[in-house]
Amino acid sequence: GAGENTVPRIFAPYSIYKGKAAICVDPILPTFTKLDSGHFRVDRKGCILLTFGPAIGERKYDWGKKQVFALSATEIGSLISMSPTDTSEFFHDPSMKSSNAGQVRKNLSIKAVPDANGYFISLNVVNNLTKTTDRFVVPVTTAEFTVMKTACSYALPHIIGWHRLTNPQHGDSAKKSSKIDPQLLDLEWDK
Amino acid sequence: GAGENTVPRIFAPYSIYKGKAAICVDPILPTFTKLDSGHFRVDRKGCILLTFGPAIGERKYDWGKKQVFALSATEIGSLISMSPTDTSEFFHDPSMKSSNAGQVRKNLSIKAVPDANGYFISLNVVNNLTKTTDRFVVPVTTAEFTVMKTACSYALPHIIGWHRLTNPQHGDSAKKSSKIDPQLLDLEWDK
Amino acid sequence: GAGENTVPRIFAPYSIYKGKAAICVDPILPTFTKLDSGHFRVDRKGCILLTFGPAIGERKYDWGKKQVFALSATEIGSLISMSPTDTSEFFHDPSMKSSNAGQVRKNLSIKAVPDANGYFISLNVVNNLTKTTDRFVVPVTTAEFTVMKTACSYALPHIIGWHRLTNPQHGDSAKKSSKIDPQLLDLEWDK
Amino acid sequence: GAGENTVPRIFAPYSIYKGKAAICVDPILPTFTKLDSGHFRVDRKGCILLTFGPAIGERKYDWGKKQVFALSATEIGSLISMSPTDTSEFFHDPSMKSSNAGQVRKNLSIKAVPDANGYFISLNVVNNLTKTTDRFVVPVTTAEFTVMKTACSYALPHIIGWHRLTNPQHGDSAKKSSKIDPQLLDLEWDK
Repeated sequence: GAGENTVPRIFAPYSIYKGKAAICVDPILPTFTKLDSGHFRVDRKGCILLTFGPAIGERKYDWGKKQVFALSATEIGSLISMSPTDTSEFFHDPSMKSSNAGQVRKNLSIKAVPDANGYFISLNVVNNLTKTTDRFVVPVTTAEFTVMKTACSYALPHIIGWHRLTNPQHGDSAKKSSKIDPQLLDLEWDK
Repeated sequence: GAGENTVPRIFAPYSIYKGKAAICVDPILPTFTKLDSGHFRVDRKGCILLTFGPAIGERKYDWGKKQVFALSATEIGSLISMSPTDTSEFFHDPSMKSSNAGQVRKNLSIKAVPDANGYFISLNVVNNLTKTTDRFVVPVTTAEFTVMKTACSYALPHIIGWHRLTNPQHGDSAKKSSKIDPQLLDLEWDK
Repeated sequence: GAGENTVPRIFAPYSIYKGKAAICVDPILPTFTKLDSGHFRVDRKGCILLTFGPAIGERKYDWGKKQVFALSATEIGSLISMSPTDTSEFFHDPSMKSSNAGQVRKNLSIKAVPDANGYFISLNVVNNLTKTTDRFVVPVTTAEFTVMKTACSYALPHIIGWHRLTNPQHGDSAKKSSKIDPQLLDLEWDK
Repeated sequence: GAGENTVPRIFAPYSIYKGKAAICVDPILPTFTKLDSGHFRVDRKGCILLTFGPAIGERKYDWGKKQVFALSATEIGSLISMSPTDTSEFFHDPSMKSSNAGQVRKNLSIKAVPDANGYFISLNVVNNLTKTTDRFVVPVTTAEFTVMKTACSYALPHIIGWHRLTNPQHGDSAKKSSKIDPQLLDLEWDK
């Protein structure tokens, strides 16, 4: 639950529901650490979280089988600069720099539909620990991709933490912690 | 009236007044439901409400005969990605999924003016219950359409609810309710 | 001065200083009227105020001889959609609909520099009452015009009043008044 | 430290780490002076501060040898309007208008990579006082440059001070001071 000292979370995904799978697009803000000087610095970086769920019936999706992919600021830059014929591919290893490195490989691809409008957004997750492979493909129209680009462009400065510069009194959650790079990966791992 | 516990509404339409009809463009924010956990999720989705009124004299419009069309996030994505020669068409059935399904059909079209700048924005409302057809056509200049695109791009993240992520303490109205899809349609039906 | 009940004004122009004249670009927010219902509606529309001053020495400008031109939302739409080769022209009569109609004519033109980058921004003010003509020409680089476009795109939703929709508790000044169209012109007349 | 009357600073750079050097991109807001009238005007202009540090090992940078370059609003306009094949160059003299004028020359160049995507961002600092020359070159991908453009476009209205117009009660630091042009240069000098 959201205790008294916690900023409540807001669930407001942009969701694209298609025949075989759905994507939810959600911004995750950075967290800030208060320094001994009284100033703040970004602790855990923000991201755009893409959550994929497989269809199990008409307009029904099994979110228990979801897989997530956390786009970093630079990956968002890649997405929002795509032309109608471009392709982007991103690779993540959620256990990078741990003893499980290389055991799970995630591959997100955004490919223009040939001779047509829109893109195919695909996520492949190969997990050597559980011996499973998950694959999701969501066809996205130009209108839907424009919403993704516009919303991600809006979110990008917030994900970096620049919104705090202009609204310093906003009650973002600030917590003390020490983390190692890459900061985003535990998001993909924990969920 | 606006009671003490209600956030006052702000009326700030962008209006385009032309010879035969006028359009008012208004953003409607989503509403949020507080969950038992203390967190919030979007309850009723936001939209851009287009209100059409017929001209009844020089710069006079009969708003008693207005018709509305609520653009969803994805339809806004379609509008803001239009090139100067594109055409968009949207169909709504405000009583979809009720016993009156199919009785009222709304058709919004945005068509580039051939060999010229600007667009024709047309709304057709065919109502089989009242045996009436309403038709509005508003010629919109490139400058006016640029205002619509710029303002709708600004509004889009707010309509999805992403502004709440960055300003969680803002006093949006939150109410408990359960609703079925499509959430926007009652807006078009009630007015 | 700024009394206790008044929101203080902020002076933050984007200024372009050139050899013969300077332009200051300033957003003016709309004012809101509280309705009997407790809700608010836009009272006086916002604008982008362009203030021109003639040069009277190196980096010195005579602001006592300034002339202003208030760009409406639609005129801002025209400015921000200009391609590098476009030209825009706007005509204002600050005493329109009064007995002095036609006595003062203002003409703002934005013209691409032929075979080069940037624009000439010119203001002509012909005043039949004082028998004077003022003319200002400011050459503006592509970089400076990009600042104008970016800042005016940012300001546009605020000028329409849509920022209030998302931040309803912000302390904008609200006053009761009744005004006739065109609301912007008194800004140009009073100064 | 950040005293009770001071708005805490937020450190949220967008950082690009490459083999020979790194760049941190940071917005610096303007400061405001309260006038005797109770109103406010911009005192010291804002900027985008680029901080370069040389690599001294794998993913290690010597920030004690950093050099900074403060992009003004118009220089930001130049950066955000660059096409994929454009080149921009900026020259700063941090001691301009002082007795040390000309002793330190800074040159920032942004050059499209020939026959490829992305840019080289280079900073040259020639210091005749210390008889030193520092040179940094950071190759920046299209995705990274898109983040820079998007974040700088977001920051630009804030750097000019226009965010205060719409959020006048925000607690930016306001101090009395008198400064001569160019206001940004002491930032580059002091650091």
